[in-house]
Amino acid sequence: MIDTMLIVLVDHGMTTGALAARMTYHSAPEALQGAVAAAILGAGSVHLGSSEYCAKMLNDALPPDSKETDLDTIAKNTVEKRLANKELIPGIGHGIHTQGDPRAERLFQVAQETKVYGRYCALLRKIGKLAEEQVGRRLPVNVTGAIGAISMDMGLPWQMSKSFAILGRALGGIAHVGEEVRRPIARGLSDLVRKNLQYEPEG
Amino acid sequence: MIDTMLIVLVDHGMTTGALAARMTYHSAPEALQGAVAAAILGAGSVHLGSSEYCAKMLNDALPPDSKETDLDTIAKNTVEKRLANKELIPGIGHGIHTQGDPRAERLFQVAQETKVYGRYCALLRKIGKLAEEQVGRRLPVNVTGAIGAISMDMGLPWQMSKSFAILGRALGGIAHVGEEVRRPIARGLSDLVRKNLQYEPEG
Amino acid sequence: MIDTMLIVLVDHGMTTGALAARMTYHSAPEALQGAVAAAILGAGSVHLGSSEYCAKMLNDALPPDSKETDLDTIAKNTVEKRLANKELIPGIGHGIHTQGDPRAERLFQVAQETKVYGRYCALLRKIGKLAEEQVGRRLPVNVTGAIGAISMDMGLPWQMSKSFAILGRALGGIAHVGEEVRRPIARGLSDLVRKNLQYEPEG
Amino acid sequence: MIDTMLIVLVDHGMTTGALAARMTYHSAPEALQGAVAAAILGAGSVHLGSSEYCAKMLNDALPPDSKETDLDTIAKNTVEKRLANKELIPGIGHGIHTQGDPRAERLFQVAQETKVYGRYCALLRKIGKLAEEQVGRRLPVNVTGAIGAISMDMGLPWQMSKSFAILGRALGGIAHVGEEVRRPIARGLSDLVRKNLQYEPEG
Repeated sequence: MIDTMLIVLVDHGMTTGALAARMTYHSAPEALQGAVAAAILGAGSVHLGSSEYCAKMLNDALPPDSKETDLDTIAKNTVEKRLANKELIPGIGHGIHTQGDPRAERLFQVAQETKVYGRYCALLRKIGKLAEEQVGRRLPVNVTGAIGAISMDMGLPWQMSKSFAILGRALGGIAHVGEEVRRPIARGLSDLVRKNLQYEPEG
Repeated sequence: MIDTMLIVLVDHGMTTGALAARMTYHSAPEALQGAVAAAILGAGSVHLGSSEYCAKMLNDALPPDSKETDLDTIAKNTVEKRLANKELIPGIGHGIHTQGDPRAERLFQVAQETKVYGRYCALLRKIGKLAEEQVGRRLPVNVTGAIGAISMDMGLPWQMSKSFAILGRALGGIAHVGEEVRRPIARGLSDLVRKNLQYEPEG
Repeated sequence: MIDTMLIVLVDHGMTTGALAARMTYHSAPEALQGAVAAAILGAGSVHLGSSEYCAKMLNDALPPDSKETDLDTIAKNTVEKRLANKELIPGIGHGIHTQGDPRAERLFQVAQETKVYGRYCALLRKIGKLAEEQVGRRLPVNVTGAIGAISMDMGLPWQMSKSFAILGRALGGIAHVGEEVRRPIARGLSDLVRKNLQYEPEG
Repeated sequence: MIDTMLIVLVDHGMTTGALAARMTYHSAPEALQGAVAAAILGAGSVHLGSSEYCAKMLNDALPPDSKETDLDTIAKNTVEKRLANKELIPGIGHGIHTQGDPRAERLFQVAQETKVYGRYCALLRKIGKLAEEQVGRRLPVNVTGAIGAISMDMGLPWQMSKSFAILGRALGGIAHVGEEVRRPIARGLSDLVRKNLQYEPEG
C-alpha cells in the first residue's frame, strides 16, 4: 500500500519542487541535504496539501474513537455544513480528470487488496456522491483525497497524511539532483528565465 | 538492497535530527514539510556524510569508466597517498564497533545476494585491510563506508551516495513527528534544556 | 522602524528555533545555511505566526484600496463577527503581559515618531478596546499584533508581515550558532535529553 | 559596516535563490518561512561560500591568538603552499571584474572609516599581490574575499563569515516573495521551463 502511494506521488516532470532542488544543488553541491530540503519545502497547501485538509475533514466528521456507523448521515451532515459555509470540500473533483481520477481508483483498489480500505475510504466516496448531487456535476474522489482517506484508515493521525507526499517529493528531488549531476541544466534554465523576463515597474 | 540500506539508516533514538524536527513541528504544526526539512538538514559531514567522502575516494581511485582491474595496486596507492598527506581514510574504523561493524557486514551480505556487490565493495575492503597493516589496529569497513561502496557499485554518481542517509532521516523525522502528534514532548524538552543551562559570560 | 521591529524579534534565550539551529550545526557544520534554515522553519503558527493572522484580519476588514474612514464601525463589525463565529481575535491579549505588552507600546511609539503609524494601527487598537468591553477582561494589543498592524501601515501585503519574525529568527539562529562555534553545547544537550527520557510503550 | 555588507549581498536579479524561493512560495504560500529557507539553502560553495574558505585560509595562516606581525612572510608562505599543492586561493580574482572588484574596494573603504580594517584585510591584499606576481595576471581581492577578511577583523570565528551572505539571501528572498505576492510569475516561469525542455534519453 505504502509503495503504491509513493509511486503515485514521486515528482513527475519538472515541477516547482524539482526546480527548487536543482537551483539549490547548483549553488551548494556540497550539501545535498539542502537541495532535498528545498524540494520538500514546497509540499504545501497549493499542490499537495489537500490530502491533509481531506484527512482533517474526515477526522472531524468521524473521530477515530467514535463508534458511529451511519456513514450516510455523517456524509450528509458534512456536505451540507460545508456548502452552507461556502467552504470547499477537499479531496473530490479534479481539473483534468473530470470523470474520475485513475490514480485514486488504483489506490482504492490496492487498499482493498491489502485490507486497508475501511470506513474513511467509504465515507469519502459517499461525500463525493452527495456533493455531486447537490452541485450538479461530477466530483469523483481525486488522488490526494484517496491518500487522505487511506492514511486515516491506516490509523495515522490526520496531521500525518501529508507525509506520503513529502516522502514522494524527497525521492523526486533526489532523482532530479541525480540527473543534474550527470547532465546539468540549472544554469541554462536560470539563463533562460532571465532572458525571458522584462522588468516592468509597478503602477 | 535499497530497503536494507534505508532500514539501517532510519533515525534510531532521539538524534539531533529528531530533536530539530520535533522543535520545528512544535512551533509550526501547519507546515509538516518544514519539520521534515529540519530533520534532513543535519545530514551533514559529522554524522552521516562519510558515505559521500568514501564514495568520492573510491571514485577518484577507480573512475567508473576505468578498465583497470588490479584492485590491490589501487588500494595500495590510495592508502599510501592518504597516510602520506595525513588525511583520514573515510569508511573504515568505528568508535564503538572496533572489531567489525555488524551493519556493514549485513549490507555486504545483501549486496552479494542481490548481485550488487562489485569492484567498489571489494576495493574498500582491500583499503581497510591495508590500512590496518600500516596503522597497526583493526580498521574494518563501517556502515557509511559500506553504503558509499554499494552506491558506487549500483552505478550512482559519488555525489548521490548520501541520498540514502537523507531518505532515512526523512523517514525518521516523520516517525518522530508522528509520535509528537500523539504524545508531545518538545515543550517539556525545551523546558528541561532551559532549566539545565546556566549562562556563563565569556572570558 | 524596521530596526526596532527586528530588535524586538531576535530570538531571546534558548528557543525551539535556537535548539534546532544548534542541533543542525552540530551534525552539518560545513553548511551554515542549513542551520539558519532550521532556525527559521519554526516561524510558524504557534510562536510567531499571529502577526500574519492579525494582518489578514485587518486587510479583510479594511482592504488597502478602500476609502472607508469610519474605523469605529469597521472595528465593531470585526469584533462582532469574530465573537459570533467563536473565532480568536489575533494580535490582542497576552499570557504574561496581561495589563499591556511593553514591546507593543514601544513599537507604536517608534511608528509614530517615524510617521508609519496609520489607520491600521488605530484600527487594531479600537478592535482591542471593543473586544475588552465584550469579553470583560483586559485585551491590550500584543507584540505580534503591533507588527501586523505596522506592516500593513507600511504598505506591505498582509502575507509579508511574518517576514520580520523570520529575519529576527535568522539573526537569532546565526548568533546561537556563533556561540555554538566558540562554546559547543549541542552534544551535551542531546545527551541530557536522552538521559531524561524514558520510553513508555503506547497503550 | 554590517549595513554595507548586507547591501552588497542582497540578491540582485533573478538568482537561483530567488527562483527557489518563488517556486516554493507558489506551492506553499501558507508557510513563508519555507520559501525563505529555500532561498538561503543555496548559499553554498559555488556562489557565496568563498568568503568562508577565504576566512579559513586567513585563520590558518594567522590564528586569532597569534602575536605574529610579519604579514609579508605569512602571505608568502600561504601563496607558495597553495600553489605547490595546486589549490585555489579563495577571495582573489573575478571572472567579470578582472581589473578590480568595485564592491571589494567599497567594503575596504567602509572598513577603514569604521576602524574595522585590520591585519586580516591587510594580509589578504598582500596575498593577492604575491599571487599576481607568481601567476602573472591581475588577481585583485574580490567581494567575497573582502567579506571573509573583514569578518575576521571583526573578531568573528571563520565559520561565521558566510552569515552575511545568508542574511543577504534571506532579505533578497523576502523581497522576491513580496513581489511574487503582488505580481506572481512562478507559474509562468515554470511553464516556460517546461516548454523549453526536451527530454533526451541518456546514452
